[in-house]
Amino acid sequence: MSGDLKPWTVLERRTLLDAGPFLKVHAETVETPEGRRVENFYQVEQTDFVQMFVEDADGRVLMLRTYKHGPRRVSQTFPAGALNPGEEPLAAAKRELLEETGYAAEDWTALGSYVVQGNQRGCVCHMFHARNARKVAEADSGDLEEMRLELLTRAELIAAAAEGDYALLPVIAMLGAVLLPDLRDNLARSAARPAP
Amino acid sequence: MSGDLKPWTVLERRTLLDAGPFLKVHAETVETPEGRRVENFYQVEQTDFVQMFVEDADGRVLMLRTYKHGPRRVSQTFPAGALNPGEEPLAAAKRELLEETGYAAEDWTALGSYVVQGNQRGCVCHMFHARNARKVAEADSGDLEEMRLELLTRAELIAAAAEGDYALLPVIAMLGAVLLPDLRDNLARSAARPAP
Repeated sequence: MSGDLKPWTVLERRTLLDAGPFLKVHAETVETPEGRRVENFYQVEQTDFVQMFVEDADGRVLMLRTYKHGPRRVSQTFPAGALNPGEEPLAAAKRELLEETGYAAEDWTALGSYVVQGNQRGCVCHMFHARNARKVAEADSGDLEEMRLELLTRAELIAAAAEGDYALLPVIAMLGAVLLPDLRDNLARSAARPAP
Repeated sequence: MSGDLKPWTVLERRTLLDAGPFLKVHAETVETPEGRRVENFYQVEQTDFVQMFVEDADGRVLMLRTYKHGPRRVSQTFPAGALNPGEEPLAAAKRELLEETGYAAEDWTALGSYVVQGNQRGCVCHMFHARNARKVAEADSGDLEEMRLELLTRAELIAAAAEGDYALLPVIAMLGAVLLPDLRDNLARSAARPAP
């Protein structure tokens, strides 16, 4: 797919900030394929996370309404959460779903992994689609945010966009990744293929 | 929309890293509405950017294939770029489109602004849809990446997802935001409304 577009070479990497597992910042010296050298190309390393589109047996989608400190406002979000160290994305998705909503599901499809910021990286969002979820426990997220679980139809998910209910880019990404059937199938096909 | 979900209060904010206009990192002490106090809630402040879905008179979509250092691989991307200091998002979109592709368009619709990272913020992605774009100049981006302009049909955009051509979350977000007609209309309706 890349033709002859070549990657950059990292000549040097200095860590400017190490705030534990959640956040590191590095300054890289990189060289482009044309031989151009750039000092201080910053790389931000945040914790990778999972985000999931989860439907119950009636096709209603589990959404959480909660205050998010990034945008400093209340947003409708899909269940999501950070990976624990060494944790596989699918295991993290099942754990976060149970913690945040008390639901579990058997039928999971990976929709791929995407970097949130093209230049400085940030972190990777691993996306999943789960079906036939059922309530098996009480929610107990331990998260700082108070969260309200709402079960929405697909039409209600779309309608919420007109109300300004979505503040987060990963949420917008998830809407298209599942609600466009051909895109969903293609992302799942690509995600199921072994890495080259 | 928020019901009685209340925002957090920022009690204190220390800047841990100031790497100029591109990147700052702050450690905040926050208090939740339940009175829980959290030290070192990190906020990452990166440059906001625009991303645009641009169609020519034949409905072909302008895409750039380029190496991106965030995911460390080649990705198909929509035209996009960082806002200059003080620049309005729509002005930035028109400037970046011209620089990256040599195209201009008259017909622009805002699709809203979304934070890339719910907890640590990162930056805001301002999304636009432009139609009837035409080539008016040679591309001259000044960007570090070598970029290849490709004109894709909507079907080809969807097909590329099966090939693993998309490495970036903002690109996935844009696909759904425009290709799902009801979602597109609702996001545009919300974006056109004055802020409360």
